[in-house]
Amino acid sequence: MDKSTLEKQRVRSRRRFLVGSIAAAGAASALPRSARSEPPLGAVEHDVPPDASKVQGYPLADQSYGSRAQFETEVRTRFKTATPQSSWTFTPLDRSVGIITPSGLHFERSHGGTAVIDPAKHWLYVHGLVRQAKKFSMQDIRRLPSLTRIMFLECSGNGLTEWSKPTMRTVQGTHGLTSTSEWTGVPLSTVLKEVGVRPGAQWLLAEGGDAAAMTRSIPMAKAMQDCFLAYGQNGEAIRPEQGYPLRLMVPGYEGNMNIKWLRRLEVSDAPFMTREETSKYTDLLPSGKAVQFSFEMEAKSVITFPSGEMVLDGAGFYEITGLAWSGRGTIKRVDISVDGGKTWRQAALQGPVLPICHTRFRMPWNWDGKPAIVQSRCMDDTGYVQPTLGQLIAVRGLNGPLGSIYHLNAIQSWQVASDGKVSNAHYY
Amino acid sequence: MDKSTLEKQRVRSRRRFLVGSIAAAGAASALPRSARSEPPLGAVEHDVPPDASKVQGYPLADQSYGSRAQFETEVRTRFKTATPQSSWTFTPLDRSVGIITPSGLHFERSHGGTAVIDPAKHWLYVHGLVRQAKKFSMQDIRRLPSLTRIMFLECSGNGLTEWSKPTMRTVQGTHGLTSTSEWTGVPLSTVLKEVGVRPGAQWLLAEGGDAAAMTRSIPMAKAMQDCFLAYGQNGEAIRPEQGYPLRLMVPGYEGNMNIKWLRRLEVSDAPFMTREETSKYTDLLPSGKAVQFSFEMEAKSVITFPSGEMVLDGAGFYEITGLAWSGRGTIKRVDISVDGGKTWRQAALQGPVLPICHTRFRMPWNWDGKPAIVQSRCMDDTGYVQPTLGQLIAVRGLNGPLGSIYHLNAIQSWQVASDGKVSNAHYY
Repeated sequence: MDKSTLEKQRVRSRRRFLVGSIAAAGAASALPRSARSEPPLGAVEHDVPPDASKVQGYPLADQSYGSRAQFETEVRTRFKTATPQSSWTFTPLDRSVGIITPSGLHFERSHGGTAVIDPAKHWLYVHGLVRQAKKFSMQDIRRLPSLTRIMFLECSGNGLTEWSKPTMRTVQGTHGLTSTSEWTGVPLSTVLKEVGVRPGAQWLLAEGGDAAAMTRSIPMAKAMQDCFLAYGQNGEAIRPEQGYPLRLMVPGYEGNMNIKWLRRLEVSDAPFMTREETSKYTDLLPSGKAVQFSFEMEAKSVITFPSGEMVLDGAGFYEITGLAWSGRGTIKRVDISVDGGKTWRQAALQGPVLPICHTRFRMPWNWDGKPAIVQSRCMDDTGYVQPTLGQLIAVRGLNGPLGSIYHLNAIQSWQVASDGKVSNAHYY
Repeated sequence: MDKSTLEKQRVRSRRRFLVGSIAAAGAASALPRSARSEPPLGAVEHDVPPDASKVQGYPLADQSYGSRAQFETEVRTRFKTATPQSSWTFTPLDRSVGIITPSGLHFERSHGGTAVIDPAKHWLYVHGLVRQAKKFSMQDIRRLPSLTRIMFLECSGNGLTEWSKPTMRTVQGTHGLTSTSEWTGVPLSTVLKEVGVRPGAQWLLAEGGDAAAMTRSIPMAKAMQDCFLAYGQNGEAIRPEQGYPLRLMVPGYEGNMNIKWLRRLEVSDAPFMTREETSKYTDLLPSGKAVQFSFEMEAKSVITFPSGEMVLDGAGFYEITGLAWSGRGTIKRVDISVDGGKTWRQAALQGPVLPICHTRFRMPWNWDGKPAIVQSRCMDDTGYVQPTLGQLIAVRGLNGPLGSIYHLNAIQSWQVASDGKVSNAHYY
């Protein structure tokens, strides 16, 4: 991804978010239809009466699968990679409320496009260091005892443009590669017990059924502890771009280990050293050595309101709100600064506060109309405190064309100008 | 609703659920496309390659709002009322997983169709026994401190066909007027403090901006305790059929008090005796007197698998699962019987177990292939135990053309025949 690609992305993002910012900053949640260039995605348009109470509403359909209101315009936006098959799209966190991400806005990261798989013809093969290799149909898997958990996923490349300088203009661009869903499936340990893991088995290869045949090595201890095979997302089948009909869930580990379109598990005594854990998804250090298998997503937080490209409507009361999460456990505390880190106040956490899950935080703020720098800093139940960008760079260095790439979890700063304009800024 | 309407509904439901039952009972989650009469709702169709790993998947879009997989077919189905504007649709609980209802499948109950309201032109008027009447734009409301809670809604008419005899064939028909979403909004108490409630104020009229101008009286104590004004549902704007852009949430109270398209709140010293709390939504007793203001939805549970019209694929292991909820608090315990109530075993509850929220329960079951009657019975944290149908009828009577109408929360029985066929049954 060269500089001119980034530049185009920025311009495109800006155009989109100037629109978004008007809504977010307050003038109700939508532009009039006449101001839009095309109809909103994911909505059905109906005539808008001057007074809805004077006319019959539209009828309830005999059979329906509902869609969102025609006035709502937030969308996932794609980062302009070389191909649209190996690419990613960002969740519009700026408009997020609560912790659940609407399934239609869950971020995407795919290496070979979205695979189309008929669940009636899909098999999961489990073999390698096992007593009895087996294949499982979706029917077989759905008959096993199930579990549900609300959990975040985050691409380890979330924020990759932000190491050296503030690049993306909105929180969708800086942090939109994380989303939370309610996932339902079957413990991986159940399937592994069915095949009988043999002595010496320490690792597991998970392989996707997409064109990239995405593969990652999973430690057996993690596999037996809390991994699961998900077929449900937010109360219905997992979405196509999330791995329909079956996805390996690896709670708290970097996104691409949560293998989508899962078709094969191979048990082994050693990791498999796949492309996506050797030449990619490793962290190059200043020493020239690289950290491999940096699985856990460390604690991280970001303020979603106010955030980049929004415009505050003058001094007065606002609620600062955002999301915090940790791949290592539960968020214990979030502090907020409005003076660039000089002073901090504790935010309220919205319950239920769940492990390995987005946690919504909030703090009232009476803005005096003067320039401000708003930041959030979280701590998880291991005692880990989210670092400043300076602290993180001191350890990780800036070793690539964009600085580092993966696992940027530093404190994010938003600069509020006296005219209310909010922009992405770096404070170390 | 006459008998022939019910009959047609039954036939239609059956046709649909024979299809549904094949999926639910196991033969993967969908029929091949050729077997469908029309394309699935809410999905985009893509070509299905024989092996998805041999071809590029479809590209990620520059801007997107995703849709479900083309193999998924569950839909809300409408009860054939006289008009499609005053009508209701059922959530397909038979296919539900976890506790979140996909927003596109959240049940609907409307009295004048779905209102189409531009949020930029919507006002909430608050007046009556207040110090200063005020109107609030959506922008005003969105600037106030917010809260989020995962909560069920249930129409008090849920199960109205089931008092006298088993009528609907599936759990969608018997129990599908309840759904759970993550709701976000502003405490009603905040708005009431803004206008200043005057001494003597005991009730609140809430009025919808739809063609029915749906109105209900809310006790002031409840309004100040935990009611809120929701603009968010499952992480995005509330859906049109759920009251976009603003809905009054009255936790645990019967569905229609949660006024959709909320446009007016009037503070008063007495209830308003509206149509929907006098001639409707009251409970006629054997004595000839009617209970008015039976607000709270009592504890209730239902097994969603196995349930009506499913066919079990022979003896062997199954996981019995379902949902329990209480408008008075938190579900403490669910017991399951497979012998028509002679013996009971405690089910596991999936955490987080939240107050006034669907709670998913599960129990392993090794079916011996003999006829069985499966039932669930829940208890909430007030100590209330879900009654049998006989116990409920002893108190409430059967006083209308269909028996009683509202607030049926009795234990549901599903009869499993030796051929695996599951059907709706009454055991008192």
